[in-house]
Amino acid sequence: MSSAVRTRGARRRTKVFPRGLLAALSLCVCLCVGGAVASSSAQEEEDSAMENIVTEKRAEASHRQDSADLLIFILLLTLTILTIWLFKHRRFRFLHETGLAMIYGLLVGVVLRYGIHMPRDGDNVILNCNVNASPATVLVNVSGKFYEYTLKRVISSTGNKLDDMSDNENEMLRKVTFDPEVFFNILLPPIIFHAGYSLKRRHFFRNMGSILAYAFLGTVISTFIIGLLMYGTVTLMKQVGQLGGDFFFTDCLFFGAIVSATDPVTVLAIFHELQVDADLYALLFGESVLNDAVAVVLSSSIVAYQPAGDNSHTFEGMALLKSFGMFLGVFSGSFALGVATGIFTKLRDFQLLETALFFLMSWSTFLLAEACGFTGVVAVLFCGITQAHYTFNNLSPESQDRTKQLFELLDFLAENFIFSYMGLALFTFQNHVFNPMFIVGAFLAVFVGRAANIYPLSLLLNLGRRHKIRSNFQHMMMFAGLRGAMTFALSIRDTATYARQMMFSTTLLIVFFTVWICGGGTTQMLSCQRIRVGVDSDQDNSMGLVEGPEKISTKQESVWFFRIWYNFDHNYLKPILTHSGPPLTATLPPCCGPLARFLTSPQAFENEEQLKDDDSDLILSDDINLAYGDITVDTDASGHMSGGFASAMSSEALDGELTYGDSEVVMRGTRLVLPMDDSEPPLKDPHLLF
Amino acid sequence: MSSAVRTRGARRRTKVFPRGLLAALSLCVCLCVGGAVASSSAQEEEDSAMENIVTEKRAEASHRQDSADLLIFILLLTLTILTIWLFKHRRFRFLHETGLAMIYGLLVGVVLRYGIHMPRDGDNVILNCNVNASPATVLVNVSGKFYEYTLKRVISSTGNKLDDMSDNENEMLRKVTFDPEVFFNILLPPIIFHAGYSLKRRHFFRNMGSILAYAFLGTVISTFIIGLLMYGTVTLMKQVGQLGGDFFFTDCLFFGAIVSATDPVTVLAIFHELQVDADLYALLFGESVLNDAVAVVLSSSIVAYQPAGDNSHTFEGMALLKSFGMFLGVFSGSFALGVATGIFTKLRDFQLLETALFFLMSWSTFLLAEACGFTGVVAVLFCGITQAHYTFNNLSPESQDRTKQLFELLDFLAENFIFSYMGLALFTFQNHVFNPMFIVGAFLAVFVGRAANIYPLSLLLNLGRRHKIRSNFQHMMMFAGLRGAMTFALSIRDTATYARQMMFSTTLLIVFFTVWICGGGTTQMLSCQRIRVGVDSDQDNSMGLVEGPEKISTKQESVWFFRIWYNFDHNYLKPILTHSGPPLTATLPPCCGPLARFLTSPQAFENEEQLKDDDSDLILSDDINLAYGDITVDTDASGHMSGGFASAMSSEALDGELTYGDSEVVMRGTRLVLPMDDSEPPLKDPHLLF
Repeated sequence: MSSAVRTRGARRRTKVFPRGLLAALSLCVCLCVGGAVASSSAQEEEDSAMENIVTEKRAEASHRQDSADLLIFILLLTLTILTIWLFKHRRFRFLHETGLAMIYGLLVGVVLRYGIHMPRDGDNVILNCNVNASPATVLVNVSGKFYEYTLKRVISSTGNKLDDMSDNENEMLRKVTFDPEVFFNILLPPIIFHAGYSLKRRHFFRNMGSILAYAFLGTVISTFIIGLLMYGTVTLMKQVGQLGGDFFFTDCLFFGAIVSATDPVTVLAIFHELQVDADLYALLFGESVLNDAVAVVLSSSIVAYQPAGDNSHTFEGMALLKSFGMFLGVFSGSFALGVATGIFTKLRDFQLLETALFFLMSWSTFLLAEACGFTGVVAVLFCGITQAHYTFNNLSPESQDRTKQLFELLDFLAENFIFSYMGLALFTFQNHVFNPMFIVGAFLAVFVGRAANIYPLSLLLNLGRRHKIRSNFQHMMMFAGLRGAMTFALSIRDTATYARQMMFSTTLLIVFFTVWICGGGTTQMLSCQRIRVGVDSDQDNSMGLVEGPEKISTKQESVWFFRIWYNFDHNYLKPILTHSGPPLTATLPPCCGPLARFLTSPQAFENEEQLKDDDSDLILSDDINLAYGDITVDTDASGHMSGGFASAMSSEALDGELTYGDSEVVMRGTRLVLPMDDSEPPLKDPHLLF
Repeated sequence: MSSAVRTRGARRRTKVFPRGLLAALSLCVCLCVGGAVASSSAQEEEDSAMENIVTEKRAEASHRQDSADLLIFILLLTLTILTIWLFKHRRFRFLHETGLAMIYGLLVGVVLRYGIHMPRDGDNVILNCNVNASPATVLVNVSGKFYEYTLKRVISSTGNKLDDMSDNENEMLRKVTFDPEVFFNILLPPIIFHAGYSLKRRHFFRNMGSILAYAFLGTVISTFIIGLLMYGTVTLMKQVGQLGGDFFFTDCLFFGAIVSATDPVTVLAIFHELQVDADLYALLFGESVLNDAVAVVLSSSIVAYQPAGDNSHTFEGMALLKSFGMFLGVFSGSFALGVATGIFTKLRDFQLLETALFFLMSWSTFLLAEACGFTGVVAVLFCGITQAHYTFNNLSPESQDRTKQLFELLDFLAENFIFSYMGLALFTFQNHVFNPMFIVGAFLAVFVGRAANIYPLSLLLNLGRRHKIRSNFQHMMMFAGLRGAMTFALSIRDTATYARQMMFSTTLLIVFFTVWICGGGTTQMLSCQRIRVGVDSDQDNSMGLVEGPEKISTKQESVWFFRIWYNFDHNYLKPILTHSGPPLTATLPPCCGPLARFLTSPQAFENEEQLKDDDSDLILSDDINLAYGDITVDTDASGHMSGGFASAMSSEALDGELTYGDSEVVMRGTRLVLPMDDSEPPLKDPHLLF
């Protein structure tokens, strides 16, 4: 083995330090390879003193160490999968795979922290130099040879802390610490894309208004409520003398923003398994997907409001306005990019090529947004939604399966990876600041913030909704405000200051608590709130009404701009962009015949007949093709049209369809019984699953 | 946009330099982020002079630049896919997707090289210090603040060259240069795993002896022939004064090893499409898969033979022996690891979990091998073969599809990425050494080396084979000796010395030539050699005989140890490790009944009936279950058995089966007509495809 080391080391001359880039396939991870590796010192002696060999050996040993470190995570995931398989087999629902991943992560964290001690080697050399700015690259002249060094981080601004760090930092713990950008650039994108791609579209669009209200208005409310409460807490702490560093109001707002991103993955998994009401599912899922995007942009706007340079942390109207403008700019930019790339794919016949193209387009959306200075994660979310809406229809059935399965797998791996890393981080992160007062304050603030989001908004929404959101649904939504991957990724991104370190530690505890306690109590909560389970989503669309059978029109829900958009989308965009939808020859006036024929794909004509059956999963399109036959059109060939036309066009048909299936609401008041005893795994409904 | 930059920059305090880790999903790539970014200088001025902001801005700009660079590659791949789709649609076979990827890579390389000029900024600071070894981490004290720098590379040993480098290196070109380890740790593993996983097992095992001979003996022959010829060339060059640096005999041997790894991906794609004889396919594919592994281990053994420390490049018997021992050690270690992890999975019921577990196990094989100092790529290859043989049978049908599709996609992306990078590297690599004499010598040597591999070995093998390998098959194998991804990855791994740079440049040309010329001429070659196309692999097993119908026994092919192994595997390993195969109760003697029942999975009993139909793709198992009923067993319960028993047991049955389908050889002498006119895409045969 020792000789094997030598071989492989000798091959690497250009690449003296492999920097722990060790990865494969879908999870590529950059382990922090800090200093040199202690274990190589024994082998160094037996060789000649040649410096090259030493360097190569060190690189080789470091590479092997990285492999071993990454292996820890892979084995953690493997263990999680095996245990989850057992749980699913036995139908234990009190612990979701993410919760389990955290527990295993915790255990390994404890072992790494207290079990293994690896002394930090004294290989760091302190150079004093007189340059006045920190260069990105430093060339060090060591006895005639030049070594290129790249800047890794600023350690601290005072010389005293440097020694502390050297003493305290355990080498092993540093090794299992990932670069925080890994979460944002590698692990989050597939999770967010998958969320967008798997939005259950019919129910999502029907509850669009409410979802947008919860996601946008609700997140902003929650952010400010939590921010204010935390500011109160922090002020109190300062009075008592508990605060060990600066903590500005913007920090409080930032904390509010990051803990406002909900992630009810545990709850939704149980909802899906028990087939809980599809509208409740859509409300929760839609909110959690969109509020991630809002929280990302909001938190970055808050940071922009407080530039690192000037120390003015007072309130300033101008900066607030600027932040708001930036929020809109980044959000709409990311949205536009996501939409633009999402509708681009129109390829058939070769499944592998289709799938590969689909994958690459999604990825390039992320990169394009990042390259433009927008938020890649947000762009990827809307790219996912758009691709589910348009591109999905262009794919062959095999590719539809393939893409779903691919992103499902990536999502699964990335999510469990993040959660197991969270468990690990509780013990391996070096700069935890656990402050009991802050923690208690944060838990209270999170609770109040969630309540201030759900209850007042539900009250307002119920004024406009025919389908009222009942109080048991509201309680369930309140309860399902778990925090997860996005909150963690946002809080670990910057842990340089005292305030951020305290936030990070507290955030970890909030995630643990909500995932284990709220996630674990979902079935109990469902049964306690008397929410029906086992609802076939295609048959029943009730919003949990008990006021007896009632014919409900959802006209109220479909506001005018949504109607216009829907009609335009269905009659023009879909036929142009996809192979599905009605042929343009039917929706455009006869005078535009040649143009229409040119723009419509041959498949659209073939598909025309089977539209009634095929499209039931897509937005409301199951019945709409009854409408496009008798349209009176007042557009000209250039495609310009009046809003009045569109809204008048098929409002009856749309309305009729929106109320489709709502004619009979049967509330059987099923109480949930925990079904622990039946042994068959549930049949998966592909529409719900993906 | 400028303000957006500020936001995101401010969030990154711990991570001053994101080091270009920018990636996602399956291809995670570490772009070389060298110096600072020039474009940020304009924005710097408008802000305060605070150093923090400058650093953050730089990090932010660098991150955006990385995104843009990576986007170039993604768009290249997208372009390749779109063009290939067109080609496939029109049935152009003269250019494979990999060849096309190279062309697009070349074009982008030209643009980057000559179209865009980005001056290198003067941000590098040269520090002179008196440490006697190069530390892995340097802390630089810049006016009170400590910055941590990590070692990136050794630039050169003389001060003079340093200035040259600074002048000549174009920043843009450095940016699109990947860390060579990316190929070995990220891109190659999925390719190699997929190759192992998709070995067409029946034909592979039937030709096992020949494949092993070509792969092991042939690669060694080729390595030494090419090495000797190159040594002659180099000596001649030295005489003429054409050599600009050192070039030792071990360098020549190393070159021989790396160009001995064949990669006939283009040829095999055409073979598959035209349904060329399955045995020829198996011979070529099996050889190319295994010789990659041999070449990797061989090249690393050669490097070990020449330690970087001492300058003795003379022949030494001891070192050779050591290298040989290491070859065996690394090879068998990697093999054992791959096999051990491959057979581990035995999970059912939940497809997502199955697929995730399968994926993680494959990845951990790679990591485990690397952590142990073995060769991850070799381990992954044998892991793939083992998983195809055992684990695949344990998967549910959906997971079988999923895993195949997943690895097919990863293989496709990684392969095209490597080939387009090759095109790019021809123009963007900074240290090309093109020496006409060396190039001519190398092309000749590669040709002679391939010939010395194929023809003598075929002659030898034909002595033992009943199915002779006909001369047109030999010519085809000679012609199909393309060089590809593995050769490239091995040659780019180390480009520090003059010799290695010359090798790298020459290797690039060899890959271009073979992929374009040999790959493009495959259909012409097939038609010229009168090799039949459109053969149904399940019906016809001829080796291209024209001597008329003849009853052939392949007893000669199945050497005794293979028979023993096969019987042991089929009767004991498969039932224990998988759900398929005959139940142990049938293969073990009656006295071991309880043990047998305990070890056999319930599914095996269920599957017993349908084995005849189901397993036809697996090794020879279509008929063997006729044999296990009437076995006379002389083992005891502990499982120990004599070799004689196994070979006697069912040799007739095995023999009968090996000749199955060979009774009639019909040679219609079909001449290939290039089928450019028919418009339907070919139906894909899943057995051949994967």
